[in-house]
Order: sequence, then structure tokens, then C-alpha cells
Amino acid sequence: MSDYSQKSLELHKKLRWKIWTYLKAEINTKDDLSTVYSPGVAEPCLQIAKNKDSVYDYTMKGNTVAVISDGSAVLGLWNIGPEAALPVMEWKCALFKNFAGLNAFPIVLDTQDTEEIIKTIKNIAPVFGGINLEDISAPRCFEIEERLKAELDIPVFHDDQHGTAIVCLAWLINALEIVWKKKEDIKVVINWVWAAWVAITKLLLKYWVKNIVVVDSSWTIYKGREWLNPVKEMLTDLTNTMCILNPDGEWCIKWWLESAVIWTDVFIWVSVPWVLTKEMVQTMNSDAIIFAMANPIPEIMPEDAYEAWAKIVATGRSDYPNQINNVLVFPGIFKWALEKRVNNITDEMKISAAKALASAVENPSPEKIIPWPFEKWIADLIAASIK
Amino acid sequence: MSDYSQKSLELHKKLRWKIWTYLKAEINTKDDLSTVYSPGVAEPCLQIAKNKDSVYDYTMKGNTVAVISDGSAVLGLWNIGPEAALPVMEWKCALFKNFAGLNAFPIVLDTQDTEEIIKTIKNIAPVFGGINLEDISAPRCFEIEERLKAELDIPVFHDDQHGTAIVCLAWLINALEIVWKKKEDIKVVINWVWAAWVAITKLLLKYWVKNIVVVDSSWTIYKGREWLNPVKEMLTDLTNTMCILNPDGEWCIKWWLESAVIWTDVFIWVSVPWVLTKEMVQTMNSDAIIFAMANPIPEIMPEDAYEAWAKIVATGRSDYPNQINNVLVFPGIFKWALEKRVNNITDEMKISAAKALASAVENPSPEKIIPWPFEKWIADLIAASIK
Repeated sequence: MSDYSQKSLELHKKLRWKIWTYLKAEINTKDDLSTVYSPGVAEPCLQIAKNKDSVYDYTMKGNTVAVISDGSAVLGLWNIGPEAALPVMEWKCALFKNFAGLNAFPIVLDTQDTEEIIKTIKNIAPVFGGINLEDISAPRCFEIEERLKAELDIPVFHDDQHGTAIVCLAWLINALEIVWKKKEDIKVVINWVWAAWVAITKLLLKYWVKNIVVVDSSWTIYKGREWLNPVKEMLTDLTNTMCILNPDGEWCIKWWLESAVIWTDVFIWVSVPWVLTKEMVQTMNSDAIIFAMANPIPEIMPEDAYEAWAKIVATGRSDYPNQINNVLVFPGIFKWALEKRVNNITDEMKISAAKALASAVENPSPEKIIPWPFEKWIADLIAASIK
Repeated sequence: MSDYSQKSLELHKKLRWKIWTYLKAEINTKDDLSTVYSPGVAEPCLQIAKNKDSVYDYTMKGNTVAVISDGSAVLGLWNIGPEAALPVMEWKCALFKNFAGLNAFPIVLDTQDTEEIIKTIKNIAPVFGGINLEDISAPRCFEIEERLKAELDIPVFHDDQHGTAIVCLAWLINALEIVWKKKEDIKVVINWVWAAWVAITKLLLKYWVKNIVVVDSSWTIYKGREWLNPVKEMLTDLTNTMCILNPDGEWCIKWWLESAVIWTDVFIWVSVPWVLTKEMVQTMNSDAIIFAMANPIPEIMPEDAYEAWAKIVATGRSDYPNQINNVLVFPGIFKWALEKRVNNITDEMKISAAKALASAVENPSPEKIIPWPFEKWIADLIAASIK
């Protein structure tokens, strides 16, 4: 057991209740009770019954986020179920409080059925000002998020997808500045197609990165390849799939991962530990940029990647520099969305958030591309900057 | 608008967020983040995945109560829907914290369908150590509570039913002591059949009060009467229905409310404002005991009841003495149930809680039958006394 595992276990045992509800009003006398409860409380109830929107004036709704998971895709541990996922959701809530001052409450769901998840979340939505979906496996997460966005009037944000995509984009903006490459010219290879990859691919395309190749567990993805699910099918429409122009038009061949990485500038991975070898890194273009974000063990350890002449390496871990950590984004995004009562977080807003985050480091260097996750002013910067 | 209404409205506007999540751990450094979040958090997750029960050791579950309502029967305001019910649920949560130190979180449901409510609550149950159902209309509340009790492994308690019943019983125990009447000898008339009445009737019967007559909005309830729903039908089996012995056995007649109250010792009402008149009180036995618990306006104002020679009058209001307030019970009941990991709160346990509450006043008098609701040691007394 690692040092952090041991410390974490002890901390969890000591502090079972990391988030603690705290009472903002005094209830010590009959008069207090008459005011806050019966008969006084009837009045705000009646006001809200008359004008549903005033629930934002009289209740916690406007400052409360639900962190919801079914425990089906928990950071590197995969489908461990709702109870085992709870510590992650609790800390996610703690991070909302710590970095944005928002109240957040964890909900872990005892179902992994798409329709039931959607219905359950819609049923409990009235108390929340926003919904952060967390650690729900693909492809269910796509439908769940899309449907909830369409059917609820509060912001719904699957952080594993969009939080990751925004931090990656911010990171890429500054990394490209360091290596003097232009977004239009680079070749990006994205490995695997979990939740985050689709979001990263789409956001990079929206940001005008043009040459993106997506690789799944087997090969590059292209139209007409066998074993494409609807998500991969959709990606073949969006990405450059290493097809070769021949006299008939296009000719696509299967590239293995090892071949696909050759002469790439940027490698983005959120898959499984150890899949990227030093030899593969050596076949990339010079000044290679690597995002190895599998958690807790990355696709390649940063020391190995640097040994193979990578220029900049990011991981998802907080014990290495250059952590791609969603905590840089979700507190600010929700702070802004709740303050402004935004109910649809668009791609333009996400790019705007990424630019704000990138701008927070004045002179990016390979050791510090974006701010450290524990710089608490970042959420305010993002909340104030999104257009 | 009453004084309390005005004060309450201002307080709600000022303190939109009465319950505030509070962070019990420091997250200020990379090291903190590595411990509490990735990679450290994987360890408690794995422990819980191995042994589901350890969720009580590593998470907030064991100290967290859900206060759940569909907004269909909110104190005297009836079916005002989830958003408008939220202030009541928020304060209910605040009372859990204030009186028992428990964390509670309000969930207001955007559905009033029995099956959907049951499914939704089961789906979100993993994060909670107990479920307090609140302000759900009868008869749906009976099925919802029964089904959840059978299908979940955490305590489920519909406070409107059982909290009220326990406080009433505690109150009755001490009131009978004051007027020197025995539980076996008294005649009790219970008006209407909302959620609480069934629970009160059943608990009094279990406590060996023998002579109970139940009256609905029209007449006394007896077997074979027209317009009986299944709940009333069940009550005809349990109660004495003012039938008269004749040579053939029994002969039942309809009694109006006005006739049913004559020569009764105890009158228990949770119905609608103003239905009990001074004239009706004058037809009761001497040393009449009246529970007029409609909220916020009782069935008879205490000053009117005393003018008509009632001996002891209780209401549901905190601005009168002798408040029948569930806050005397639910914090202690849940504190005990969570500490002991009880998952089924039986009638015997409820009677035990009522006796503990009754014992908290050394010399009961008509002005102080049971403790004031804001005596904070009561929850501890109850939690320590239930057998």
C-alpha cells in the first residue's frame, strides 16, 4: 500500500464525515422556532408556490450542486458500485466548497440503468442549482447528460468529459506556446474512446485543431472499419483518420497504436496504465507533448517519457508536476453557471474557460504549464472570465 | 401577514442557505490533494468495494439523514409541490443538526407517483444512514413507508405519522397523570384520518388505551358504513366505534362529530382550523384533554378551549405553551437508530421513546406537560433510553 493510500485510509477513518452540514441560523428559543419553523415558514413556502422562481431567493437551491455517480467508472477502479464510489464523491463535494465556496452534496445511485438514472436525477433536481455528473461509464454517460440537459432547467455537466476537455485545452494552449507550434499544424493522436476523449476531440476541433487521429484499444478509427459503436462511428466523421489519398479517392488502412503515434506532436491518453512505451515516445515528432492521464497509474511514468525525449508531460496525478486536474475548472464553471443562472454550458463557454485558465500562468514553462490545483483564486478568475 | 411570517420571510431572504456544507479537512497543498483525492482516495474505495459494510467506517453515511418530501401535504398548506416545500425540509434538516448533531439533507421530489417515489428513494439511498419521510399525503405515505421499510436496510421513518404519535403518547402519559385518569378507562375521540391519526390510533392501542372512536370528515367510522377507504376499513377493525349492544349483538349508528365528542376524556385532532367549537368542548367529560394540532391554525384556539373549561390544551404551534412538536422526538430517534444501526423502528421502540420523553418532566402541570422543544438534552435522553 502506498504512502498516500495509507494516509488516505487513516484520514477517512478519522474524518468519516468530511462534509458537515453547518447551521447558519440560531434556533435556541421558542421565538426562533416560531420564526424558522411553524408558523413562520409557511410564508416563504407560499411565496414560492406563487412564483416558483423565487425558490432561488428563499432557499439553498442557487448555491447547491449535486455530485452524482452510479459508481460505474470510478477513477481507474471502474465499476465498484455506489457505496465504494462515495469517498470520491464526498471529496469532490469538498473540493467544490474548498475552491468555489459552493455547497455540494454527493448522491450515489443504486442503479446503472440509463432510464432509471435519468428519471431519478430529474426527480431529485428541485433542490439543486446544478448537477455535476461523475464517474458514469461511456456510452451511457453521453445519453444521460444529453437527456438531462434537454429536460432540466439547471446546468448539467459531466465533469469527466468536459472538465477534462477544458483543462486539456488550457494545457495545450500554453504547451503549444512553449514549443512554438501552431494549433493548425499539429498532429494529435487521441487514444481510446472513453467519455473524456470524445469531449476532448470535439473541443479541440472546435478550437481549430485540424489533424486529429483517434485510436481505440485496437487500431485507428475510420469509416467502414469493423467493430465501430455509434460513438466511434460519429468520431470517424469528425477526425482525420490517417487515410491515404489514392487515385480512387481515399484508401484507409488500419494502423496499430504503435504506428499511429509516429510523427505526432501531441499524444492524449486517458486509458489504462503502462500502454505507452519509451520506444513509442521516441517515434514522435521533436518537442513531443504527452498527456498521460490514466488514474492513479498513468500510461507512462513522466520520468520514462522525459528519458525518451518528450518535451512536456502531464498526468492526472497530484504528486507529479503538471497535473491535469479538473479541480482547476469545475469549481469556477459551476460558480459562474450558478451565479449567472446559465442552464446550458456551450462549447464556446468551455473554450472561454480554457483560455481563462491558460492565461492564469504568465510565463508557461514545461514545469508549470497551468496553475497548481490548489491556487484558490482560479475559480474566481474563471467565473469572472467566461463569455 | 403575521409577525412571524414577516420575520420568517426576511430571514429566508437573508439566509438563503441555512444549511451550509462545511469542510472538515484542510485541502491547501499538493500533498493534501494527493491524500484526500487521487491517488489516495482509491484505497478507501477499494476497502468498501471489498466489504460494503465498511461504508459506515469511511464515509458520511452513518451520520447522514435524508429529509424527503414530494410536497403533497405540507403543514396546513397541502399540495404546494417540491420547490415550495423546500424551506420546510431545509429547516427540518437544520433541526436535525441543532438538536441531535446529525447531518441532514433535504430532497424534494418532482413526482407524486407512489412507484416512482419508492424507486427514486431506493436509488439514492446508498449515501444515507436513515430516511425521514416528510409531508407526503395519505394514503400514499403508508405504502411508500411500508415498502421502503421492507426493501431498504436503513431506518425509514415517516415523521408526520410516528413522530407525532410518539409526542402525543408522551403528552397523554403525563396529562393522564395530572387529571388522575387511567389509560384503560378513558374515552378518546380521534378526528379525521390523515397520516398521523392512523399512527396515533395504533400506538395508543398498543399502549392499552381501549376506548377509541375515530371520526372522519363526516361521521364515526364503523364496519359497513358507506364511503370507507381501505385505511378507514382497517381502523374499524381496531377501534370501538360507538356501537350499541342490542339483542342481536351490535347496532351501529352514525354519529356526527358533535355527538361523538360528548362525554369524551381526550380529543385528538389533526385536521383543519376552527372545527372544534366552545360548545362542543363543553359537552366533553370534566378535565378534558384537547390536542388541537392543525398547523398553523389549530382546530380551536387554546384561549377558547380554556374558556370552555378544558383542562389541558396542546397545539402544534411554537408560540403557545404545550406544543406538540415532533422536534422533541425525531432528532433522538434518528440519533439512536443511526448509532445502533437499527433498521426497523418497532412500536415497542416508539412507546419506549414516548416514555423517555414523558419522564423528562419531573412534575408535569397543565402549563408544562412535556419539555420545551428547544431543550437540547432531550435528543440525548431519548437516544440513551430507547429499549
